[in-house]
Amino acid sequence: MRTTLELGQEIGYAKLSIEAVAARAGAGKHTIYRRWPSKGALLLDSLLSLHKSSLDYPDTGDIFADLRTQIHAAVDLLGNPPFGPLYRALVSEAQHDPQLAAALNERFISPQAAMTVARLETARDQGQLSPDFDLSLAMAILSGPLYFQFLITQEPVTHEYVDRVLRALFTGMGK
Amino acid sequence: MRTTLELGQEIGYAKLSIEAVAARAGAGKHTIYRRWPSKGALLLDSLLSLHKSSLDYPDTGDIFADLRTQIHAAVDLLGNPPFGPLYRALVSEAQHDPQLAAALNERFISPQAAMTVARLETARDQGQLSPDFDLSLAMAILSGPLYFQFLITQEPVTHEYVDRVLRALFTGMGK
Repeated sequence: MRTTLELGQEIGYAKLSIEAVAARAGAGKHTIYRRWPSKGALLLDSLLSLHKSSLDYPDTGDIFADLRTQIHAAVDLLGNPPFGPLYRALVSEAQHDPQLAAALNERFISPQAAMTVARLETARDQGQLSPDFDLSLAMAILSGPLYFQFLITQEPVTHEYVDRVLRALFTGMGK
Repeated sequence: MRTTLELGQEIGYAKLSIEAVAARAGAGKHTIYRRWPSKGALLLDSLLSLHKSSLDYPDTGDIFADLRTQIHAAVDLLGNPPFGPLYRALVSEAQHDPQLAAALNERFISPQAAMTVARLETARDQGQLSPDFDLSLAMAILSGPLYFQFLITQEPVTHEYVDRVLRALFTGMGK
């Protein structure tokens, strides 16, 4: 996985192949394929080796501040190598590799979503959130605008952008 | 472009190449490259040939109902071939083709965003929206949760999902 990260940063993850990783690592490509059946699987393990517990939720008792801290940490990862370019390549691969998409959800997205919802439930019980807000959508609604910026407009996802999004989501669109 | 759509549906857009399109169309590959310098450019023109004005905004005077109508139409496109698989392939390509990402924004995303903001401004002037909601983020906030479902969890983006997202966004997270 270290070889994957090194080579990905040198030649770009789009150009990376299992063959190239095997050659650089001085291993046979069958050795690599035995452990990682596809390029996507190798990218996903490399991604998970990076992020560890750095996206855990703080709980200072102030939900707005804690979401802000947590999402700032996420965009610091997303905005820089190796995590940012690696994650971009992984999402790209997942568009034509349903097994990879399922693994990404199971091993990365779902655990994050569970932590997010748990932190929000505590806040709701403390009266810090609208009791009518549908918490099961929290992950989509909080992270969707970041994905839109990262994958579609591809403008930088900054702390300032996160702060504006959080304010807009807490305000709500309705009267 | 008709050849692109036919061939894309047969073999999948991920496997599609300019060479394959040229062969099927009975044209030289240089003829195709002269008009479309990359696979991404060909996919984008094919996408734009499909969507026409079907994503125009209705204005019945009820912003919630009109957003609902418009986003239902968008997810009907997204959930079915040829638009859905083609758009998925295009977003995938755009992750390693910055020129394509820029063209996608300029020719597809920005015009949609401008229409969305114009319709929302009318609604705000009529007192139908929170005056504190940041309209410049409207596109990211309205479409972000759809992109999250379409690109990341890859669960079906249904009318029911759209309705839940709209209700949550109008409610807002805050007290």
